[in-house]
Amino acid sequence: MKLTILFGGASFEHEISIVSAISLKEKLSGFDLNFIFCDQDHTFYAIDQKDMKAKTFSSASHKKMPIVNLTNGGFTQKKLIGSKEHTGIVLNLIHGADGEDGTIAALLDFYSIKYIGPRINASVFSYDKRYTKYLCDSIGVKSVKYEVLNSSEQKDITIPYPIIIKPASLGSSIGVSIVNEESELDYALDTAYEFDKNLIIEPFIENVKEYNLAGYMADGEIQFSIVEEPQKNKFLDFEKKYMDFSRSSQVLKADISSDLENKLKQSFTKIYTGMFEGALIRCDFFVVNDEVYLNEINPIPGSMANYLFEDFKTAIEKLSNSLPHSKRAKVNYEYIHSINSAKGK
Amino acid sequence: MKLTILFGGASFEHEISIVSAISLKEKLSGFDLNFIFCDQDHTFYAIDQKDMKAKTFSSASHKKMPIVNLTNGGFTQKKLIGSKEHTGIVLNLIHGADGEDGTIAALLDFYSIKYIGPRINASVFSYDKRYTKYLCDSIGVKSVKYEVLNSSEQKDITIPYPIIIKPASLGSSIGVSIVNEESELDYALDTAYEFDKNLIIEPFIENVKEYNLAGYMADGEIQFSIVEEPQKNKFLDFEKKYMDFSRSSQVLKADISSDLENKLKQSFTKIYTGMFEGALIRCDFFVVNDEVYLNEINPIPGSMANYLFEDFKTAIEKLSNSLPHSKRAKVNYEYIHSINSAKGK
Repeated sequence: MKLTILFGGASFEHEISIVSAISLKEKLSGFDLNFIFCDQDHTFYAIDQKDMKAKTFSSASHKKMPIVNLTNGGFTQKKLIGSKEHTGIVLNLIHGADGEDGTIAALLDFYSIKYIGPRINASVFSYDKRYTKYLCDSIGVKSVKYEVLNSSEQKDITIPYPIIIKPASLGSSIGVSIVNEESELDYALDTAYEFDKNLIIEPFIENVKEYNLAGYMADGEIQFSIVEEPQKNKFLDFEKKYMDFSRSSQVLKADISSDLENKLKQSFTKIYTGMFEGALIRCDFFVVNDEVYLNEINPIPGSMANYLFEDFKTAIEKLSNSLPHSKRAKVNYEYIHSINSAKGK
Repeated sequence: MKLTILFGGASFEHEISIVSAISLKEKLSGFDLNFIFCDQDHTFYAIDQKDMKAKTFSSASHKKMPIVNLTNGGFTQKKLIGSKEHTGIVLNLIHGADGEDGTIAALLDFYSIKYIGPRINASVFSYDKRYTKYLCDSIGVKSVKYEVLNSSEQKDITIPYPIIIKPASLGSSIGVSIVNEESELDYALDTAYEFDKNLIIEPFIENVKEYNLAGYMADGEIQFSIVEEPQKNKFLDFEKKYMDFSRSSQVLKADISSDLENKLKQSFTKIYTGMFEGALIRCDFFVVNDEVYLNEINPIPGSMANYLFEDFKTAIEKLSNSLPHSKRAKVNYEYIHSINSAKGK
């Protein structure tokens, strides 16, 4: 099948998007792949498959490659005579800002380009961890209790140590710290505020059981990946996560009861349904006393969580065939006509 | 001051956006105004001021006008030789889909165009009435109790008659019905489902007190309009609202206690702060037993609620000088460099 992988973006996760894209080049070999890179200035470049290596971007060689522009139905590359169209389904692989905050979703929707990835609403509810909490509360999915800090107001943290501090709107552990005592607090806050003016404070639960589950909607049903118990080293720091984004070998299924597996799938279903259609997402859960808590939604997981699927290519194909299509309102100027005719015009 | 008014959109409210734009041409006379029209196919046209009348659009004459394209920093019009740039602040006046659902916000953000209007998050929380309820619950603002119906599942309504049925994501009373008894239900549901697959059901409160309040953030403070008690005729139907969008004469201040006025302002402040910066919004409240309930947020109110402001031009100028600027992440390829150097590359 034909697929355009869109990656890069003006995001703190720009580099891991490149790593993700390179790993999908391998995982989706045999597909007719196109690569479009969004640089930090929001210029789009068509990247040849042979140039899909990290150095192309870190050395700025991509700037010599053809610029493409968003046009109705696809990306267009101007030629000396005429133009070349890059049409077909896009896989939005821009992690973090641009890709996961709703911006790319809106652009692709506006230009009627079909895509794999979260729509605007789904992006907003997963990108900002505060809004993920709102969503959980509203649909009856448990999440860890939390407090919000904002750089513009002074407020005390009432959750007892140890706590975990996260910028409200970033993934990949960027700016995240575990704080064991007050003396470590200021540094952790400064670090997090570098990335976002809103922070989420949660209790840090040592040795909590963590399980990741990915899935997507196709043929009217959610198609689940296996459940993984991720390795952890307190929590994955950015460099580890960065390497993590190039994972490609399939992982082992977590050794859990079918009862727990069902609970995880039920929570996933509540989160996904009516919100994430069109996306392949990974939900990261905590389990405490047999109760499932949502930790995080990754609406564009690193390398699309390919390692959680037994047959990743088929997953992408099935999802591509089940993408939502947005209905555009028809305009017929009925009211203007009726008012003008009432006025005798 | 220089201002580009962006209107139209592929929306059921396309026509009222045209009416809104025409009324602002009058209200903002003296400003250096440009008009850009987004047609239902998502093509942008530069419209000359003299052509800013309803007939231009209903007769499709706009198709003879110059096409402009989104480019970094503004809209660009190709000329035979070179191009003409429409730069400067945009006022997003596209009501409903495109304008209020976050799409236009994302486009303007992506292309670094400063604009008056709700950002992506604010759009999502105000466009879909379900999410407005989530927001209210989370920030401690009361809203009317509700149920959600979805076209894909059969569910009984438990709220007793009379009820009001609304498509979850439309403004301007489109698709809204009051249902007094079961015999009227099916028709009302069919009507509403024509516009959205999710519906909001609320109790219909006869003769409830309604108050509208508009405002915007400038110089670090919310600048409030006067409070209006809107006229009503059960509820405004679309045709009345349509005419309402061309309102321009200033209304009378509602005759309410300063205590109630403060309560309305407090609720407005909770809703606005940290979410709607950059927008001039109108909140429509219900008051029952002296308690304030949010009914609806209009993040792009008809003709920008000019009639609620004593000095509307100054309001637009002040808001223009206080627009949020989005910080774009810098990319330095630090991780790729460090990994390549670890690999000896």
